[in-house]
Amino acid sequence: MEIRELGEFGLIDRLKEQTIFSPDLVLAGIGDDCAVVRHGPGTVQLMTTDMLVEDIHFTLTTSSPQEIGYKSMAVNFSDIAAMGGQPRHALVSIALPRSLPVEFVTAMYAGMKEICAQFGVNIVGGDTVASPKSLVINVALTGDAAPERVVMRKGARPGDLVAVSGTLGDSAAGLELLLTGQDGGAAGVILKDRHRRPQPRVVLGQRLAAAGVTSMDDISDGLASELLEIAVPSQVDLVIDSAALPLSTELQTLAGQLSKDLLHYALYGGEDFQLLFTLAPHCYDNLPADIRGAITLIGTVQPGEGRSFLLFPDGQREQLQARGYNHFREDVEA
Amino acid sequence: MEIRELGEFGLIDRLKEQTIFSPDLVLAGIGDDCAVVRHGPGTVQLMTTDMLVEDIHFTLTTSSPQEIGYKSMAVNFSDIAAMGGQPRHALVSIALPRSLPVEFVTAMYAGMKEICAQFGVNIVGGDTVASPKSLVINVALTGDAAPERVVMRKGARPGDLVAVSGTLGDSAAGLELLLTGQDGGAAGVILKDRHRRPQPRVVLGQRLAAAGVTSMDDISDGLASELLEIAVPSQVDLVIDSAALPLSTELQTLAGQLSKDLLHYALYGGEDFQLLFTLAPHCYDNLPADIRGAITLIGTVQPGEGRSFLLFPDGQREQLQARGYNHFREDVEA
Repeated sequence: MEIRELGEFGLIDRLKEQTIFSPDLVLAGIGDDCAVVRHGPGTVQLMTTDMLVEDIHFTLTTSSPQEIGYKSMAVNFSDIAAMGGQPRHALVSIALPRSLPVEFVTAMYAGMKEICAQFGVNIVGGDTVASPKSLVINVALTGDAAPERVVMRKGARPGDLVAVSGTLGDSAAGLELLLTGQDGGAAGVILKDRHRRPQPRVVLGQRLAAAGVTSMDDISDGLASELLEIAVPSQVDLVIDSAALPLSTELQTLAGQLSKDLLHYALYGGEDFQLLFTLAPHCYDNLPADIRGAITLIGTVQPGEGRSFLLFPDGQREQLQARGYNHFREDVEA
Repeated sequence: MEIRELGEFGLIDRLKEQTIFSPDLVLAGIGDDCAVVRHGPGTVQLMTTDMLVEDIHFTLTTSSPQEIGYKSMAVNFSDIAAMGGQPRHALVSIALPRSLPVEFVTAMYAGMKEICAQFGVNIVGGDTVASPKSLVINVALTGDAAPERVVMRKGARPGDLVAVSGTLGDSAAGLELLLTGQDGGAAGVILKDRHRRPQPRVVLGQRLAAAGVTSMDDISDGLASELLEIAVPSQVDLVIDSAALPLSTELQTLAGQLSKDLLHYALYGGEDFQLLFTLAPHCYDNLPADIRGAITLIGTVQPGEGRSFLLFPDGQREQLQARGYNHFREDVEA
């Protein structure tokens, strides 16, 4: 069987068996935003990694080298944010075509250093190798957190509220503008920037963890996929109000120009790197006003078996499928 | 300027500036086998990463998927070994052509798990992405060590002895047999195995660190290069006795069949993943007999300015250059 038939998640299911050989050191292995391993007393270490491949994750025509470097670091910070942790140390591996200009590589690193400086993260090592064809970047990142504050995906409970930070679909709409060469005016500038320079919600993630949210995930593959990433391990159903999904004014401004319904970008767009989380109603009531202003309630957690549903204003209800990006499958939407 | 003009080490020199934004957490950043960062009390964390690219680091014709997986993990273990540490947790990223058989990927992982089981190392996470062309594997690895036992490259002192573990040049000779399709009989089987399944010297590295060796490095790029990796940061000269270099009986058996002088494989071969280290004479005298049996004294540390020399039996002396593998340069020998 070829891996394109099995798909990304089927493949991961096969690989993740029997990978822990010193179990006393591991609190959580493969299957959440980060691994959680024992560290010193009073703290746990988070570990995450993301690989970005030219013409799969980025193209040299739609992003500058600085933006590619920035984003390769940002997506990892976002995984630490989704556990409520603080990113600490990065290892950067790059496979480079030999004909690449030195300035390209230094600009890419400048983008990484810019966001590392912003969050106080160290680049402590890496590997620099030749590539016969494509540019490949891998960032591995450690972070730390107080053990009692690490937020996993599996903690959602019936009766909880479902919430997201920021707005949804902007990155996907920005990518569409970039790929189709559309301008989009001032709104277009902002949407393209959201695609190329996403802001990981590190501080918000820490504050939500401290406030006691019950589960959390970052939105890398699109809301529909990420809802299931919480619903399945929590063994609950998430019921989302379609009218509540937060759409930016920029996305709404360009509604007539974009190829799809706005709900499509919000549900399946991906790469927003906002936080999706669940929390008890009293926890929401106690949130500081500035956090409440930065998030939107979009639904409720109900007893169930790991599904998610979208409720429309007319009372119709649709079960959501994971239709975010799946590597190795070419028949799904990106 | 293209990176092939600047070369691997020139590029790293440009990238490694201004990469530390939380300096209080970092004991050593870019420039040694591993980074050393603060951990809990009484321990430090080591971090290392290696990226392996198809047709640069391995080919699908000379190595099986299981061997590729095994080796991608082994080379990282070797970096932890070179600091005297214990490998702990690995993150594995792989970029896979979509047409690759699932069995290839599971066999590659079986090779990784085999060596992880041997050393009690956990695979705690990773990333699995599509690649338009080449197979790319990145392993990022943490380890730990007692702070006073971490062995850096910069600690060699005049008066120390220079030593290596095991034998040199076997891996390069094994690769030559594989690439030229030569058999080599029983000796060939062993040399090919040394190339495809190197044994990282983890336990030996820890015992040497505990014994108080002054500097250590693993031999990934060839002895000549690695001597400078110790000589330059230590600001000493390393003087090596050409007749003392340990050559395996298998390498000597095939001397007539191989294309180059045996000294060439020992000096420039690379990928032996043995340990190169320096130690005071009294430290050597106090080593347990089994360690002394596993290592060979090859030279002395002298006052100097970061050079290395090879002494021949006739009294001639040749300054050694780094002629190991340099990514991006196509004019150097692999």
